[in-house]
Amino acid sequence: MARIVMKFGGTSVADMSRIRHAAEFVRREADAGHAVVVVVSAMAGETNRLVALAEDAGPPDPALDARSIEADAVIATGEQVTSGLLAIALQKMGYRARSWQGWQARLKTDRAFGRARILDIEAEALAAAIDGGEIAVVAGFQGLTDDGRITTLGRGGSDTTAVAFAAALKALRCDIYTDVDGVYTTDPRITKMARRTSKLSYEEMLEMASLGAKVLQTRSVELAMAYRVNLRVLSSFVAPDADNPGTIICDEEETMEQRIVSAITVSRDEARISLLNVPDEPGRAARIFSALAAAAVNVDMIIQSPARTSGANISFTIPEGDLERASSAIESLKTEIGYDKLIADREVVKVSVIGVGMRSHTGVASTMFQTLADRKINIHNISTSEIKISVLIHSEYAELAVRALHQAYGLDRDAIGATPS
Amino acid sequence: MARIVMKFGGTSVADMSRIRHAAEFVRREADAGHAVVVVVSAMAGETNRLVALAEDAGPPDPALDARSIEADAVIATGEQVTSGLLAIALQKMGYRARSWQGWQARLKTDRAFGRARILDIEAEALAAAIDGGEIAVVAGFQGLTDDGRITTLGRGGSDTTAVAFAAALKALRCDIYTDVDGVYTTDPRITKMARRTSKLSYEEMLEMASLGAKVLQTRSVELAMAYRVNLRVLSSFVAPDADNPGTIICDEEETMEQRIVSAITVSRDEARISLLNVPDEPGRAARIFSALAAAAVNVDMIIQSPARTSGANISFTIPEGDLERASSAIESLKTEIGYDKLIADREVVKVSVIGVGMRSHTGVASTMFQTLADRKINIHNISTSEIKISVLIHSEYAELAVRALHQAYGLDRDAIGATPS
Repeated sequence: MARIVMKFGGTSVADMSRIRHAAEFVRREADAGHAVVVVVSAMAGETNRLVALAEDAGPPDPALDARSIEADAVIATGEQVTSGLLAIALQKMGYRARSWQGWQARLKTDRAFGRARILDIEAEALAAAIDGGEIAVVAGFQGLTDDGRITTLGRGGSDTTAVAFAAALKALRCDIYTDVDGVYTTDPRITKMARRTSKLSYEEMLEMASLGAKVLQTRSVELAMAYRVNLRVLSSFVAPDADNPGTIICDEEETMEQRIVSAITVSRDEARISLLNVPDEPGRAARIFSALAAAAVNVDMIIQSPARTSGANISFTIPEGDLERASSAIESLKTEIGYDKLIADREVVKVSVIGVGMRSHTGVASTMFQTLADRKINIHNISTSEIKISVLIHSEYAELAVRALHQAYGLDRDAIGATPS
Repeated sequence: MARIVMKFGGTSVADMSRIRHAAEFVRREADAGHAVVVVVSAMAGETNRLVALAEDAGPPDPALDARSIEADAVIATGEQVTSGLLAIALQKMGYRARSWQGWQARLKTDRAFGRARILDIEAEALAAAIDGGEIAVVAGFQGLTDDGRITTLGRGGSDTTAVAFAAALKALRCDIYTDVDGVYTTDPRITKMARRTSKLSYEEMLEMASLGAKVLQTRSVELAMAYRVNLRVLSSFVAPDADNPGTIICDEEETMEQRIVSAITVSRDEARISLLNVPDEPGRAARIFSALAAAAVNVDMIIQSPARTSGANISFTIPEGDLERASSAIESLKTEIGYDKLIADREVVKVSVIGVGMRSHTGVASTMFQTLADRKINIHNISTSEIKISVLIHSEYAELAVRALHQAYGLDRDAIGATPS
């Protein structure tokens, strides 16, 4: 009897009618003779409501561990409610089912309340239950510290819970049911030519998750990659017996489609700071970036170029929400760093092309730059990894760039093994 | 350092502003140097919302234990939320505070999900925490089975949680904060002459709770009596530094006010069934009441009187909600029992006078009957215990009877040691 982990997100359990619909998907796996674990999120909107209640009681304060502990106890109730409701719905359909809270399922975490990391799952009792034919409905997003307190894993944590159970139980599959029918070659709101990808490698999915694709949480993909969990993203918004292949995320060797580029992403949560005329002396850049690190700002694409007059211009990107914190951290050191002017720019987006095929194919970068140049799109910054190229451009050109690149890399056509056109 | 248990009901923690107000009462006890346990209910309306969700998932079914288990997991989240929020509010005021869920506080219960009974509290860890100066905010109404499942104690269960902790911790006091300022001589909506009683014996409070006074749950009073817990009912709707003596519920010897009658209650959840001309043969009455027991109907006041023609009339009261179930159980045995006619009457109320003074004073019953006779109020049924007399009358006369009796037993006057007039 193979073990299967299924996960339903907030929109897939938004009300009782959707919970019953989710139960129909569970029924199919149980009837197929599988030992089933279902991981559930809070009903859509519940986590926000609970977070607001906790913040109203006392705003979060990183220095106050005790407050975060209590906020987690409040927020974890969202998943507890869903797990009980889905268990009842399954019982009503004639199945043996029970809910497992984080503390009952023995999902042990560290003490980073609000963003805890999973240390271990003592899954013996749960494994015995599902192998005995009982469906386990696990409250996602929550865990237990060594001293018996409730933790939450941070936004998107239920994906991570599902993958962690799949790893601990050596599950055949970990199916992430959501409100889209798979992972797309790009955002379908930008181009109608976007298509569902049938297979992606862990590495590609990881880049996509970090680069703005919201379908899976980065940590869950990292965990799936580390434990070689067979991950699949598919829709809970179709009939349970509908054709619903979704997108499979697996080892690179298993991804049969040898597209060079698998996806184009666009990340809008970007801002750029440029410092003009920084004296070209050792230690100036180090001073800048240590100040940003001290202010807990995540710096991404960095460019240093000779300034027109003397010294260098240094430019880098950060999450848009960090812009003011970053600007004031640097401005307080203006004399020390010695730049002429700080220019902050919110009107930027990061467009990326991602594909494991880049490892073995040349010309991917030149296709990208030529395609953008043909559309007169100016590139501010560039960063690359083994399997992706990202460019920072003016946000006005975001959609134009995505559509042009989507076509240029042959993603518009329904072809397997397409090469850059 | 004395230990104090404080309990706040749903209306006393209905929103963040009320939770902060409750925290002010906690502050007073903590500042007085007490080791404090606070037991909280769900925010007003939350338990109803959660019960409705669980019932929507699958209506409760006494035969389906598994369903009740899951409903309890859902419903217990209400108290979990409040406990976290109050802990945060106390932390924000500068106190060390933490929430304790039923499973963390080791409140062990039996497996009667939805109406579990407390077996034991393994309170060592919690006792150490409060004796070390940390305020313990306990989620009321919930417990833990031996096999690690969440239970709830049934409506009003948070009162019982509070008393159980007071007993386990040998607390100096158990203060029940609520939306009234104490226990009244009768329902103030019926007569403006109703007054707060400063002291009541456990036995009196127990009769009152069973007879329709909603201020405390019967089980919590039983438990307080068994463990001699110093119980007090007082208001959370006054300023924290206001004069707020409430009503103390304690041993009979300690109740200084030797009123003969302490309270008049009226219970409207009553219906009466009369069976006319039951053959006067052994076993007929037994047949009737065993049928009712089999139908799980709680029978209260029973009268058997000779019928005008032959045989006997048998009349008894039941909770109004059980009327149809009771009627059909009896009607299905009409031939076997052999009565002429079944008369069902919903237009009845039970009015009771309660007081430990009855044990040593005569004339209480005759005062009651005379007072009602003077007002031309017909008495259908009568039942008595050592410290109460109840009469069943037509519901039209409920308020008139209560006002007349309130006056007749001297409760209108602010006198101590008043005797029946």
